[in-house]
Amino acid sequence: MVLLVQHSVSPVSRKIRVMMSEKKMLFVLKEEEPWNLSQECYKLNPAGELPIFIYDGNVLCGNQAICEFLEETSRDYKLLPSLSKERAEVRRLTEWFDYKFYHEVYRNIVCEKVHKRFAHGTTPDSKILNIGFNNLNFHMEYLDWLTEQNNYLAGDNFSLADISAAVNLSILDYLGDVPWNDYKNTKLWYSKIKSRPSFKDILKDSIRGILPARSYADLDF
Amino acid sequence: MVLLVQHSVSPVSRKIRVMMSEKKMLFVLKEEEPWNLSQECYKLNPAGELPIFIYDGNVLCGNQAICEFLEETSRDYKLLPSLSKERAEVRRLTEWFDYKFYHEVYRNIVCEKVHKRFAHGTTPDSKILNIGFNNLNFHMEYLDWLTEQNNYLAGDNFSLADISAAVNLSILDYLGDVPWNDYKNTKLWYSKIKSRPSFKDILKDSIRGILPARSYADLDF
Repeated sequence: MVLLVQHSVSPVSRKIRVMMSEKKMLFVLKEEEPWNLSQECYKLNPAGELPIFIYDGNVLCGNQAICEFLEETSRDYKLLPSLSKERAEVRRLTEWFDYKFYHEVYRNIVCEKVHKRFAHGTTPDSKILNIGFNNLNFHMEYLDWLTEQNNYLAGDNFSLADISAAVNLSILDYLGDVPWNDYKNTKLWYSKIKSRPSFKDILKDSIRGILPARSYADLDF
Repeated sequence: MVLLVQHSVSPVSRKIRVMMSEKKMLFVLKEEEPWNLSQECYKLNPAGELPIFIYDGNVLCGNQAICEFLEETSRDYKLLPSLSKERAEVRRLTEWFDYKFYHEVYRNIVCEKVHKRFAHGTTPDSKILNIGFNNLNFHMEYLDWLTEQNNYLAGDNFSLADISAAVNLSILDYLGDVPWNDYKNTKLWYSKIKSRPSFKDILKDSIRGILPARSYADLDF
């Protein structure tokens, strides 16, 4: 049994939860607020980041470290293709959403709207929000191009790249900030991801003090 | 034969070069300035990031994608341990230097001193530099603690984590910004890395318009 120390606004926490659900693993969650991490968390992860993955008394930290560990140690329900070249493409796209999307979109929108409010009690800076929304459109265009070519982001099969993109979007979707109707291919792709049993748990998430957008958990959004 | 599109101030470019040298691979380099990327680069990598790894007409982009591909496809000279749990620790530390160190130190020092000058012709902001130097001391303390426990960052063996930390430090060292004498264990560890044949090429690097610090290529610094 895995214990995952996590929070709903942490995209990597959501990614690891969806991965474990896809792999039919049993796990329990322990909530920690990223803007108010306990000393215990810093002891477990000196980087002061979520999630923290604990199994059999072992502690694993770091986005790639946990993902690659899950993929290496579970024989079934693979989320990376078998060919190295195809694995590289899935990893390229996963990295795109984990880091590029995170820094260009998530930080400018979610950190402004959520982290800032709970960490400092302040309101979002509209200039920073606008940078985030402009960047979001650039990423949505890329997603729309990818989902026009193939059923899933890296080809015909569902992979880690889809999880990474979907969990990042899901947090923005909770806040009602994704312009789905301008990006039909992406909307169709996201409706497929949303319908997967592994995503069910994510759609029940709630962020303390912030109600989800009306269509957040709606499969026919 | 691999063609690597790269630049000396890109830590990931340096990392891939050292990895390929450790693995005794043949490669040629093509220089591109990160602050002035060609249209050709954007076609090869829509993320607009270096390095770009080209072999047999295939194009691979993304830090983890290229590293994991190199590790998967070369049977000898492994840079990740064989046990999944130990691999997770190497990946955790690699990620630490690739992302945490990069955002907290590299961006505040190297981007201020180098990128800003060549991209915008402006001088560094001393407030941002100071944030970078403060953060650098925090990371040096962590490195000093790690290198006090073990010969290398993740244990007794040289790994990808050592390469990632060393290439990031090597760029700061070029600028003369690493306080080696305050961190004896880290200095000893870096002198071992610097002496490896795979690092020789890095020590010959030059950044246009900026002379290296006197001890940059000195093995007895």
